[in-house]
Amino acid sequence: MESPIFQHHMGENVCFGCGHHNPEGLQIESRWEGDLAICQWTPTQTYWGWPNIVNGGVIATLVDCHCMGTAMAAAYLAEERSLSSDPIYRYATGSLSLRYHKPTPADQPLILKASIMEQKGRKTTLTCEVWSGEQLTVTAEVVALRVVDSSQVVEGNPFSG
Amino acid sequence: MESPIFQHHMGENVCFGCGHHNPEGLQIESRWEGDLAICQWTPTQTYWGWPNIVNGGVIATLVDCHCMGTAMAAAYLAEERSLSSDPIYRYATGSLSLRYHKPTPADQPLILKASIMEQKGRKTTLTCEVWSGEQLTVTAEVVALRVVDSSQVVEGNPFSG
Repeated sequence: MESPIFQHHMGENVCFGCGHHNPEGLQIESRWEGDLAICQWTPTQTYWGWPNIVNGGVIATLVDCHCMGTAMAAAYLAEERSLSSDPIYRYATGSLSLRYHKPTPADQPLILKASIMEQKGRKTTLTCEVWSGEQLTVTAEVVALRVVDSSQVVEGNPFSG
Repeated sequence: MESPIFQHHMGENVCFGCGHHNPEGLQIESRWEGDLAICQWTPTQTYWGWPNIVNGGVIATLVDCHCMGTAMAAAYLAEERSLSSDPIYRYATGSLSLRYHKPTPADQPLILKASIMEQKGRKTTLTCEVWSGEQLTVTAEVVALRVVDSSQVVEGNPFSG
């Protein structure tokens, strides 16, 4: 059975990177392929940094949103329940570190591959690679924090006040 | 005399974050205020991550482009010459690390404050703070690499091949 697209299970989502309710956003789609979470995204000229090279900040946006979706999906997986079940979990970015090894060409789709490094309470640590064809162009480490947990008030929720 | 806007001295610039020739981009503007490089940018709903909160990747894009412009301006300053003089220098991102301390509200302008930590050959290290009113919401460390130097071929230029 094919993995569901994580972003199809985020309810009303206006996010620039991953919101399917943001018509001007990047509208990424992420899914499991084995232990890796995969996102394929095709650049357009709007998102260039240099001619025919993808902007570094846009890559950061893709990595960020792909990893937040992956942290969410991994949390449901750890509880052996579907993405449409309750309680509802959502993640926000704690930190984002990227190394740009070479320019990322804009003339072909990018493939992001995220892995879970650690799940500990409401904190999930991930790594993410960005590939353009056979070239690994960017590597990242990301900390995701659970900020929505419909079963309880989350301690220190950064969106609570 | 008021500092010039760095991005007015970047020639043809199609970048999503800082290109004044990208009508769909963020079109940031950066300038010196003393030793700090300042960028003020007003969010719109397109760039939300959550309702009325700025997307983390968009903040990464602002930080990235503001710091690349600042690295450029600092290099010209170190050589005591104007941004419109030769040789032409341009910078690209080597690494980008951001910590998100609290959500960044989308209902008022953001102020970015970048400082030069070290200039060493073609590598410049910067720190950057993101402020929303009196709140410091994001801190970052950024490495910028000179990838265009019109006076010579830059060793290891990531845009050369």
